[in-house]
Amino acid sequence: MDIPTYDDMLAAHDRIAPHIRRTPIRVSHYLNELTGADLFFKCENFQEPGAFKVRGASNAVFGLDDAQAEKGVATHSSGNHASCLSYAAMLRGIPCNVVMPRTAPQAKKDTVRRYGGKITECEPSTSSREETFSKVQAETGGDFVHPYNDPRVIAGQGTCSKEFIEQTEGLDMVVAPIGGGGMISGTCLTLSSLAPETKVIAAEPEQADDAYRSFKAGHIIADDAPETVADGLKVPLKELTWHFVSNHVTDILTASEDEIVDAMKLTWKRMKIVIEASCAVPLATIIKNRDRFAGKRVGVIITGGNVDLDTLPWIKG
Amino acid sequence: MDIPTYDDMLAAHDRIAPHIRRTPIRVSHYLNELTGADLFFKCENFQEPGAFKVRGASNAVFGLDDAQAEKGVATHSSGNHASCLSYAAMLRGIPCNVVMPRTAPQAKKDTVRRYGGKITECEPSTSSREETFSKVQAETGGDFVHPYNDPRVIAGQGTCSKEFIEQTEGLDMVVAPIGGGGMISGTCLTLSSLAPETKVIAAEPEQADDAYRSFKAGHIIADDAPETVADGLKVPLKELTWHFVSNHVTDILTASEDEIVDAMKLTWKRMKIVIEASCAVPLATIIKNRDRFAGKRVGVIITGGNVDLDTLPWIKG
Repeated sequence: MDIPTYDDMLAAHDRIAPHIRRTPIRVSHYLNELTGADLFFKCENFQEPGAFKVRGASNAVFGLDDAQAEKGVATHSSGNHASCLSYAAMLRGIPCNVVMPRTAPQAKKDTVRRYGGKITECEPSTSSREETFSKVQAETGGDFVHPYNDPRVIAGQGTCSKEFIEQTEGLDMVVAPIGGGGMISGTCLTLSSLAPETKVIAAEPEQADDAYRSFKAGHIIADDAPETVADGLKVPLKELTWHFVSNHVTDILTASEDEIVDAMKLTWKRMKIVIEASCAVPLATIIKNRDRFAGKRVGVIITGGNVDLDTLPWIKG
Repeated sequence: MDIPTYDDMLAAHDRIAPHIRRTPIRVSHYLNELTGADLFFKCENFQEPGAFKVRGASNAVFGLDDAQAEKGVATHSSGNHASCLSYAAMLRGIPCNVVMPRTAPQAKKDTVRRYGGKITECEPSTSSREETFSKVQAETGGDFVHPYNDPRVIAGQGTCSKEFIEQTEGLDMVVAPIGGGGMISGTCLTLSSLAPETKVIAAEPEQADDAYRSFKAGHIIADDAPETVADGLKVPLKELTWHFVSNHVTDILTASEDEIVDAMKLTWKRMKIVIEASCAVPLATIIKNRDRFAGKRVGVIITGGNVDLDTLPWIKG
């Protein structure tokens, strides 16, 4: 297992800095009063493609040697990773092949195509996805960039916390959502060296709490097909992210669907930023566990803002 | 007529700086490509009470002498001015009395009350409002702070453009929405001294184009009860704001209801910020008049983000 190091993260930051945004920190007096904590929100939704995943994707894309770059990159994903990888590949001017279930939302396909990604559709099953992906990779020679179980991706996501510590001059804890664990792993990677006193808390939907149960059990537990409004957080941990979660995460807290939607709407209303349900989970857990956070300097990573504005979870259709 | 000066604006900025946010500038590669311009968005929606009006309100509130401060301030408004004045009064710890039609949305009343404002309801007519306001003012001695036709308010709004020029190192033009003209007047006040080469363009809904028609006619034309989704822009110019509009504004451009809603949704989608329909009018006019803006460095003032999230104009109920 090729575990990324702190130096890999530093190299990643040098590599991707020209291609990503050093996203701003925002605060809200209102949310500070509500929670009793000093909250600092790192707005990764302000990355040009709308999500932190552009960090890991750019690190992978801009780290390729010229020979591999010519063949480009490939992935299977129906979420932010696919569009961020396409975006990074577009910036470098190299091919990006994406295998997506034919049932994926049209908006997601449109975004990948707008960034020049080439989509090959598969049936919505694991076997069809794997078979289709093998074929695409064999044909194109594209370098496989996994959405999170890839040391280049984890090192890239870790650059977010480096900026966070520099911008806030220190935090008692950082809370980030956990799905596959890429952002949480990058956060652990960076903070365990740069700010070892800063605790890392992962936040997860109750209805997709496989990381929570893995954390308690001491080994990876993967759910089959969890259903949650936080659709970026349905995927299971893998060996690389489990390494960081099991070694460095202080705790995993969960929130219900209603709590997540309430925290999402509250963030839109009070902070005037568009955030995905997935990154409302940290605020939901902070509101729910007031005693854990009150009086502390708490960093919250707003991981993305790619939302279907026509169907908001608090508006019944 | 007591016309505020550039020095008044500088004094206002010193006075209010501890109480407001120096709001960030955001850019979007996507919107730059769409418009052909270099767009810079000044995010006044990120002020704690969600709108630029906290600038003018704070300047009025913190400029009062102690004797007047004890009696507090008063206004009639059902929009952002009422909540921003209440917020500023709360910061100074003085009374704020607001006369509001009993038909005003509950959410607006709640916001004023949350900031400690005291609401006296009137009937939804001009005569009832004036009568009720006279009574409240006589009883409380509160200093009347008009939403825009007040030199302290205009000087306060002008502080936004001072920051804007400092943060962008120069702009070819600034586009801001026009309703009563407070923000546009402050923009003219500041830029005519600080950056006289920077043009000031006002943007207005076609369905509430009284400022456009005033500008063409050379005198104030007030509409009776215009209807537009940009509900912050229904009020007419007054003598002080007309002074700035008639002397300093380069042009007034208009946009249809559909164009405004499209620009609003596009801003949410691409920039991940929650903005009111009122401050989508500038982007709508920029998209509509591409040739006027392409190749230019264009500042856009995002005036506010206080939106009813349960009823969005692009979602049919």
